[in-house]
Amino acid sequence: MENLAKLRQWTQDQQLDVVYISDPVNINYYTGFYSEPHERTLGLFVFADQEPFIFAPALEVEVVKATGWPYDVYGYLDHEDAYAMIADQIKRRVANPIKWGIEKAQLQFKRYEALIAHFPNAEFDIDVTDFVAHQKLFKTDAEIQLMIAAGKEADNAFKVGFEAVSSARTEQQVVAEIEYAMMKQGVMHMSFDTIVQSGANAANPHGAPLPEKIKPNALVLFDLGTNHKGYMSDASRTVAYGKIDDKSRDIYKVCLEAQLAAMDAAKPGITAAELDQVARDIITKAGYGDYFIHRLGHGIGMSDHEFPSIMAGNDLELKPGMCFSIEPGIYIPKVAGVRIEDCIHLTETGNEPFTHTTKELIELPL
Amino acid sequence: MENLAKLRQWTQDQQLDVVYISDPVNINYYTGFYSEPHERTLGLFVFADQEPFIFAPALEVEVVKATGWPYDVYGYLDHEDAYAMIADQIKRRVANPIKWGIEKAQLQFKRYEALIAHFPNAEFDIDVTDFVAHQKLFKTDAEIQLMIAAGKEADNAFKVGFEAVSSARTEQQVVAEIEYAMMKQGVMHMSFDTIVQSGANAANPHGAPLPEKIKPNALVLFDLGTNHKGYMSDASRTVAYGKIDDKSRDIYKVCLEAQLAAMDAAKPGITAAELDQVARDIITKAGYGDYFIHRLGHGIGMSDHEFPSIMAGNDLELKPGMCFSIEPGIYIPKVAGVRIEDCIHLTETGNEPFTHTTKELIELPL
Repeated sequence: MENLAKLRQWTQDQQLDVVYISDPVNINYYTGFYSEPHERTLGLFVFADQEPFIFAPALEVEVVKATGWPYDVYGYLDHEDAYAMIADQIKRRVANPIKWGIEKAQLQFKRYEALIAHFPNAEFDIDVTDFVAHQKLFKTDAEIQLMIAAGKEADNAFKVGFEAVSSARTEQQVVAEIEYAMMKQGVMHMSFDTIVQSGANAANPHGAPLPEKIKPNALVLFDLGTNHKGYMSDASRTVAYGKIDDKSRDIYKVCLEAQLAAMDAAKPGITAAELDQVARDIITKAGYGDYFIHRLGHGIGMSDHEFPSIMAGNDLELKPGMCFSIEPGIYIPKVAGVRIEDCIHLTETGNEPFTHTTKELIELPL
Repeated sequence: MENLAKLRQWTQDQQLDVVYISDPVNINYYTGFYSEPHERTLGLFVFADQEPFIFAPALEVEVVKATGWPYDVYGYLDHEDAYAMIADQIKRRVANPIKWGIEKAQLQFKRYEALIAHFPNAEFDIDVTDFVAHQKLFKTDAEIQLMIAAGKEADNAFKVGFEAVSSARTEQQVVAEIEYAMMKQGVMHMSFDTIVQSGANAANPHGAPLPEKIKPNALVLFDLGTNHKGYMSDASRTVAYGKIDDKSRDIYKVCLEAQLAAMDAAKPGITAAELDQVARDIITKAGYGDYFIHRLGHGIGMSDHEFPSIMAGNDLELKPGMCFSIEPGIYIPKVAGVRIEDCIHLTETGNEPFTHTTKELIELPL
């Protein structure tokens, strides 16, 4: 409840009447209860001088209680008017709430309209998004430990994946082997769809594994991560399967150089934009600047993409406790692609990666 | 592009200047391009008298083009101002757009604020949500064929799952066997996290499979579905593993009776609320009304939950082409749970289920 205490304090400091947390991941962050409600309504309501409450679909109420949530939780049935019930509970605590804090980056417009209908005098100027994101930016030791565990799972997944590479298997079948091995170990959720792409398919960053056999004598790109008790890992490795040509070898070398330079430069004091530039300069100098078409990295924690964004234009100074990916990539359309990625946490003096799978080019025999 | 033509016609009929489709699933419905952009911006913009365009993260542009999208597509890089670029493209087509249609149930409040900043005179009264949901409510023959294929995959998954039940495996390991078998067959996405719950754990609807051994002499509840080319299946079966007690046998019998009665009653002309009542009456009469704590069903198609909602209070008359689940459940806290579910599509005279796995109580030997 330490996270929630800070939000309650902030609510008081900002003199807000109500703060409405609607993002399921953030509700988890503050309450220890996670559920993806889909079209149903789930909210955490926080007040300056009253106890908070959770409002959830009826079938989640017992689950909330089982987490040890010490405050009120209210459920609603599918045919009931959720926002009328929420408004009723709020008015019991604050007769006429004016100053609201909402998660503008998450709250759907329709829900805002439902609030306005019940609270016509309310002001929705305050966006809680930044406060929450800033609070989540600095991971506690306990959070770091969970991310270290998630990183170990990702290292295991690479091992399974590298062993599964064979021109007898499709890219999708290699994914199947990885995720099956993870599930058998009790890792029930990857942090995103596992990516295995070989040859020209790897030139499509964030593309999908194909039902086509792994290309021999080509690079094979892996991008994967696991969800460990709500905390994510995310890492990429690219390996050679058989003999690769000079071009593929060169883009690997350049990408690795860029990744290692950024890993080296990632320490308190550098800005996100500067760190992006460290990797980008190396790739640009080698003539591949046009083929590095995404930011260097993204924050990670309870989501696989959160703040800080490691990119041009972001002058945020990086500080201890921040966790983010360093993932340069070079994608030559219709030819080949390479991406090398670790997520790290900044320490007082430098950083520690969550994944430790070698980055020296692995050459798997055909 | 037939779906898109109807939206463009509607935009004209409603005399809207711009319609902004922001839901990734709906963008897929109208364009054939699917991507989950996470915090990035993805939109389809439709006009009364101009060609539509897609706005997407830069790394998705080639993917959009590869789908055969015949209109413009614009990409933006992570450090660029997406909404400034969108506003620019819109103004090239409509100098001063006033009447907007937006997806209020999906569009985040912050994006609405970004639009208002660029178009201070714009009016956002029109919610496109209902038009889109209504259009998607009536599946075409081509869509039904994809859902039949998804249903067959779910039937296969049940077969794997029933064979995997063993007190030597945990609930999670049974899930692993199901999803692995699916992936090896090229089914890369389940439509939601596969549920396998035994004994008292099954009393928690929408709970999660545990890392605990399958309980012998108890009911085991399966709820699963697959994503077949963007269309979902979703079905539940409950089986007996070993000898079950009379109570478990009774709730199975009552739940099955309710499910079959609702399957029988599901035909054009009945309302959603009436259909829910058919099943609920049977369960209530048997004394288990308080243990059936969710609606009878939900629509299904490109999402595993969409319209129509089969519940009290929904007086929507059901019509041919509609697809939805019929899934009564009885959950006795700390004892046992049963749910039996098929998704169906309404025909002119009745309905056809997408799944055909037997609903007679299967008794697996220990």
